[in-house]
Amino acid sequence: MIEAVLAQASIFKKIVEALKELISETNIDFSEAGISLQAMDSSHIALCNLLLRDDGFKSYRCDRALTLGVNLNSLSKLLKCAGNDDEMRIFANDDSGADQLNFSFESANSERVSEFSLKLMDIDADSVDIPDMDYQAIIDMSSSEFSRIIRDLSSVGEAVSIDATKQGVKFSSAGDAGKGSILLKHQKSVDGDSALATSIEINEPVSHSLALKFLSSFAKAAPLTDRVSIHMTEDVPVMFEFKISEIGHIRFYLAPQIDDEE
Amino acid sequence: MIEAVLAQASIFKKIVEALKELISETNIDFSEAGISLQAMDSSHIALCNLLLRDDGFKSYRCDRALTLGVNLNSLSKLLKCAGNDDEMRIFANDDSGADQLNFSFESANSERVSEFSLKLMDIDADSVDIPDMDYQAIIDMSSSEFSRIIRDLSSVGEAVSIDATKQGVKFSSAGDAGKGSILLKHQKSVDGDSALATSIEINEPVSHSLALKFLSSFAKAAPLTDRVSIHMTEDVPVMFEFKISEIGHIRFYLAPQIDDEE
Amino acid sequence: MIEAVLAQASIFKKIVEALKELISETNIDFSEAGISLQAMDSSHIALCNLLLRDDGFKSYRCDRALTLGVNLNSLSKLLKCAGNDDEMRIFANDDSGADQLNFSFESANSERVSEFSLKLMDIDADSVDIPDMDYQAIIDMSSSEFSRIIRDLSSVGEAVSIDATKQGVKFSSAGDAGKGSILLKHQKSVDGDSALATSIEINEPVSHSLALKFLSSFAKAAPLTDRVSIHMTEDVPVMFEFKISEIGHIRFYLAPQIDDEE
Repeated sequence: MIEAVLAQASIFKKIVEALKELISETNIDFSEAGISLQAMDSSHIALCNLLLRDDGFKSYRCDRALTLGVNLNSLSKLLKCAGNDDEMRIFANDDSGADQLNFSFESANSERVSEFSLKLMDIDADSVDIPDMDYQAIIDMSSSEFSRIIRDLSSVGEAVSIDATKQGVKFSSAGDAGKGSILLKHQKSVDGDSALATSIEINEPVSHSLALKFLSSFAKAAPLTDRVSIHMTEDVPVMFEFKISEIGHIRFYLAPQIDDEE
Repeated sequence: MIEAVLAQASIFKKIVEALKELISETNIDFSEAGISLQAMDSSHIALCNLLLRDDGFKSYRCDRALTLGVNLNSLSKLLKCAGNDDEMRIFANDDSGADQLNFSFESANSERVSEFSLKLMDIDADSVDIPDMDYQAIIDMSSSEFSRIIRDLSSVGEAVSIDATKQGVKFSSAGDAGKGSILLKHQKSVDGDSALATSIEINEPVSHSLALKFLSSFAKAAPLTDRVSIHMTEDVPVMFEFKISEIGHIRFYLAPQIDDEE
Repeated sequence: MIEAVLAQASIFKKIVEALKELISETNIDFSEAGISLQAMDSSHIALCNLLLRDDGFKSYRCDRALTLGVNLNSLSKLLKCAGNDDEMRIFANDDSGADQLNFSFESANSERVSEFSLKLMDIDADSVDIPDMDYQAIIDMSSSEFSRIIRDLSSVGEAVSIDATKQGVKFSSAGDAGKGSILLKHQKSVDGDSALATSIEINEPVSHSLALKFLSSFAKAAPLTDRVSIHMTEDVPVMFEFKISEIGHIRFYLAPQIDDEE
């Protein structure tokens, strides 16, 4: 028996919305420690890692580790039937014959109860090991600002160069019409409007060129949290982390474009 | 001479918006008792009945009963020229040569006056007799909740099963991706947020399966009123009634799908 | 060296949005007196004239008059990277080899700086002389009301007739579905909701029939200002003027349709 209860369905709805553009089908791993998934996009260029820790749930039970394959677009459609403030219960049988993942949603006054079942599928997926590492530069910035910059630069070119120095981080792009750049300055101590502040922890300047197409997908995670952190080291995939309050994170990994690196 | 004055044009605009997806052309009947129309959708499966009583108008005059054929899409386009809070006048000559239906709209301060004329058309339509009847179950619920449930389940499957019991009403659907259901519980006395409450008057449990496509069209009437009532009896078309405050109603009739009934 | 600083980028963004539907490529003239452009639409029927006076800028410098050809769609895309409240700087080298127009945007707290460069192009354009003239009728009305009327009548027909008399101005159109008209009455003294009032200065009644397609493009300038004035004389193109507060104006000229004139 697997059973996990989330106080607010909206978090789960936003997670599925954040992932479904990048990944159409994925295995979800249920274990004692919580729920996680790791998947590559269909072009095998970007990698996504989701973690929801057991202690972030209102209640959590997993008698036996289980891997269930789901179609995220189908899940997204079913989740539309859930209210944002509903309490959400995910449950499944843990015998090997489990062929569906079940959800129930209950409104605060219990006058509205939604239930649905998602058909499961067998998905062949190679697991990818992501080594923990120290990054040369970590940019911590507003997730909505990130989202806006990616959207804006997408109308300029197809790739963005992210340049981090002690002074700030510069996003720039170039295309047929011209070129554009946006510089966010590092702020040591932040008063007032701190949600929009940018802080940069850096050992040495790093610069990476990345495909805007993938970053647009990553930015779909912005509604989950106020902040995003960008982790960069030379010759290593860039990691974008969106922390999900008190329960876990979504991390996206994207390899830099080689030709722009030189 | 026919002349009907409505205090607020918005009601009429919303009626046309509610009907035009289901019905493209229809006869409108003007009589001493008011304005009415009855029409089937183009596939001859759903039936719609509109009634606007004479006493619901600011002033109403109909010297001679008249049936005028109109194209609802054309009417909808012309109505866009009217302000929502304008006073609206509908008028036509009642001699047999009437070839247009006229509208005028006046803003509260009379500084803006719109007028337009809609070309009439000859429409052959069989009149359908709808017998008055007592239904086994009447569900009274929020029209926006109804609209939302229909929209949500439309992403799950193509048909919805509506099951009414003393405890509540359950809307459920199934499709390739899985299945989902939403249960609204019956509330006897309703405090506070009564606009969202659901009440069920029932003699015996009834269950019907209906095509979501038509219910999506019916739900376009939700902006007209806060509530919708669903009237059900075994082996009889389901009736959805949207009351229009102090002037009349729109009723939609839809036959259950047989194969799901067994 | 050309350098112009605007206190608020939003004005320039709105100007480009207002023009780009009508005009895809245009020369922009920089002179001591300010920035201006004059261009015909691609079908050579409508004419547009923009003026931004030097004294409307926070600072303005133009050592040598210069004409630079730009693609407005490209410029519009680049401008998306600017915040509405940012201070905006336009600058270019005035030597003949100038091949790009540069922009920089700075947020109020200077923590966000955007820069971009637009590639320039050679554009062959005949200059058109627009003689100053006294018009027989000048209608001064709300720009949002103008915008709404044009949008509404676009669903009725393809041309609008504008009839100005001392009593008011009537916009009317006719099409396959029927016909419609909107009359705005002249108000001498305006209390309270003056933003929506209409005033008409007139020597003799004038009537013109104009293509709605072009007026829809002109209406894109409505976000720039609360008011639009329509200047009409028999047998002369109609002029629509949108004043841009304390800095200049956009004027559109459109020749009446001859066949409707008779």
